Amino acid sequence: MAILYLISGWQTDHWVSAMRELAPERDVRLWPDAGALSEIDYVLAWKPLTGVFKTLPNLKAIFSLGAGVDAIMADPDLPGVPVARIVDPDLTMRMTEYVVLHVLMHHRQQRRYDAVQARREWRPLDQPPANAVRVGIMGLGALGRDAAEKLRDLGFDVAGWSRSPKRVEGVACFAGDDGLKPFLARTDILVCLLPHTPETEGLIDRKLIAGLARDGAIEGPALINAARGKLQVEADILAALDDGTLAHATLDVFETEPLPQESPFWTHPRVTLTPHVASDSDPLSLTRNILAQIERFEAGQPLENLVDRNRGY
Amino acid sequence: MAILYLISGWQTDHWVSAMRELAPERDVRLWPDAGALSEIDYVLAWKPLTGVFKTLPNLKAIFSLGAGVDAIMADPDLPGVPVARIVDPDLTMRMTEYVVLHVLMHHRQQRRYDAVQARREWRPLDQPPANAVRVGIMGLGALGRDAAEKLRDLGFDVAGWSRSPKRVEGVACFAGDDGLKPFLARTDILVCLLPHTPETEGLIDRKLIAGLARDGAIEGPALINAARGKLQVEADILAALDDGTLAHATLDVFETEPLPQESPFWTHPRVTLTPHVASDSDPLSLTRNILAQIERFEAGQPLENLVDRNRGY
Ligand SMILES: NC(=O)c1ccc[n+]([C@@H]2O[C@H](COP(=O)([O-])OP(=O)(O)OC[C@H]3O[C@@H](n4cnc5c(N)ncnc54)[C@H](OP(=O)(O)O)[C@@H]3O)[C@@H](O)[C@H]2O)c1
Ligand SMILES: NC(=O)c1ccc[n+]([C@@H]2O[C@H](COP(=O)([O-])OP(=O)(O)OC[C@H]3O[C@@H](n4cnc5c(N)ncnc54)[C@H](OP(=O)(O)O)[C@@H]3O)[C@@H](O)[C@H]2O)c1
Repeated sequence: MAILYLISGWQTDHWVSAMRELAPERDVRLWPDAGALSEIDYVLAWKPLTGVFKTLPNLKAIFSLGAGVDAIMADPDLPGVPVARIVDPDLTMRMTEYVVLHVLMHHRQQRRYDAVQARREWRPLDQPPANAVRVGIMGLGALGRDAAEKLRDLGFDVAGWSRSPKRVEGVACFAGDDGLKPFLARTDILVCLLPHTPETEGLIDRKLIAGLARDGAIEGPALINAARGKLQVEADILAALDDGTLAHATLDVFETEPLPQESPFWTHPRVTLTPHVASDSDPLSLTRNILAQIERFEAGQPLENLVDRNRGY
Repeated sequence: MAILYLISGWQTDHWVSAMRELAPERDVRLWPDAGALSEIDYVLAWKPLTGVFKTLPNLKAIFSLGAGVDAIMADPDLPGVPVARIVDPDLTMRMTEYVVLHVLMHHRQQRRYDAVQARREWRPLDQPPANAVRVGIMGLGALGRDAAEKLRDLGFDVAGWSRSPKRVEGVACFAGDDGLKPFLARTDILVCLLPHTPETEGLIDRKLIAGLARDGAIEGPALINAARGKLQVEADILAALDDGTLAHATLDVFETEPLPQESPFWTHPRVTLTPHVASDSDPLSLTRNILAQIERFEAGQPLENLVDRNRGY
């Protein structure tokens, strides 16, 4: 009866210490010190090494340490056990902070004000109110819905787009392939909160960007990608920034992370970038969440937030 | 029966044209083309020239074109007619946008990320969630209360301070002179939304800044003044920034506006400044609001949002 952490690209100590603090009675191991593989019941994973899952004969469930499960689902030998993703108020709050901050930076023209300040200019800019600005959120899941509601409450004219039809009060909801074009056409600030799946890979390309609204009240359109780098075609984003099809981009995620030194994004005057920190997982909060899931599972109750193998998220 | 606009420091044409559009039947005049002074019933004022009000023998009411009435109240010969200030959803929404944006910029360490990006560094910073960060709002009036509620809804630990005791759900409310010290002591990010009155002039000084929390989860404390420049002692803010008593300042208003070219604020690495644009009045929205007040007044009903002469706001 052991829990195995299978983590790459993150510091591991605060995860292990959070688990030891909250569940001192449990046998907790950290890959590659897995001990007897037949003793592993649960894996808690972030960007797990491919091929490890299939070596665990008694594995009962996999818990993702982040909201995205793309790296887990990418294992070609993933066993048929349940995979649960994270839905946690702490994670949602953090993502909403990020999205609201960057929507407001575009809306309130903060980068233009930065430049005006640097030139010692006292120059008020024309400023529409939030209700004249259309924000479009791709993905109306745990994260997209909360961001949509908070932006709506601040006054923005918000729409969302998802695979299956949704209802969110005061938010115009579009769905499926047919819904994408009209959704983009009414979007001044596009926020991406989709999972990375075979269907969404490379979705943010030249064609999508060209479909955004060009008659907005603010200089636009603007793109915010806080989901996954594989959703974006970086060469297309750069070309669109340079020919004016896109006014600004805020990117937290990249095709390759860390972002390579030679990327033109670093110094692009109309790009704000952050190092995949839109919503850092808080080890204590998420460990509590996963322990509650394990207890439910051991009591014979169903796991929550299970990944659908066919959809890939 | 005429309306007189008495405006300085702002463009006037969109105000006059908004009134002509919404009330074409009314006689609208723009100072100094006031015509016969005995015909003026109402003045709509922004930073009005001192001494004009007393020359209007039949003046019935004064309407401020902004939320602050300090410049009107500063006229030593102000007649005893009612003075109404602006409380308008458009103005409130805009101020809340500004406050939420700048609180989030401090909270999410955006200026540090700007510097990290400029150095082509991929460097995640430790990030507490909003509920570990204490925002304190000085002024719980029309603007302060809305900003407090929206920040609370984003997860921040919010307190407010006002003259008379207030109740705002989920917001710790402090009041009066006795309430100031404990309010400051639990504040990481201080937001000023007070009116400028004899009591509040120069309130944001060295002593007040030194009273802010120094044990916060983020690098702090930070100051956001979106109210009036006369509330702040700029020499004290600069000294506090330079000796580390204050980590960051975001200033929309200044002792002298436009901010003089020689002010050290322009290029201070820990100052973000905007040219008194936190909440620009929207002429159409506010004119509609004032016309409704005039119609109420002419129907014998009381005016709303009257200024209390003794308090000065
Ligand atoms: N940068 C960061 O720090 C960070 C942190 C956390 C999460 N993330 C990313 O954010 C993503 C979203 O998280 P979440 O918890 O909100 O996920 P979620 O609850 O699974 O929601 C995903 C949303 O995307 C929609 N969707 C999926 N595939 C689609 C398609 N092909 N076309 C249209 N819509 C589609 C879903 O539609 P349905 O509602 O119809 O299913 C759903 O609304 C994660 O997958 C992760 O990659 C990034
Ligand atoms: N920068 C910009 O673009 C911009 C735009 C609009 C407004 N403003 C400024 O924002 C200010 C606030 O607007 P508002 O509509 O919210 O005003 P308001 O409704 O009159 O509210 C003022 C608040 O300040 C409190 N207050 C006043 N004097 C105080 C004192 N001596 N000690 C403690 N608290 C005191 C009041 O306490 P009580 O509740 O007890 O009365 C009230 O809560 C305006 O006066 C204006 O200067 C700036």
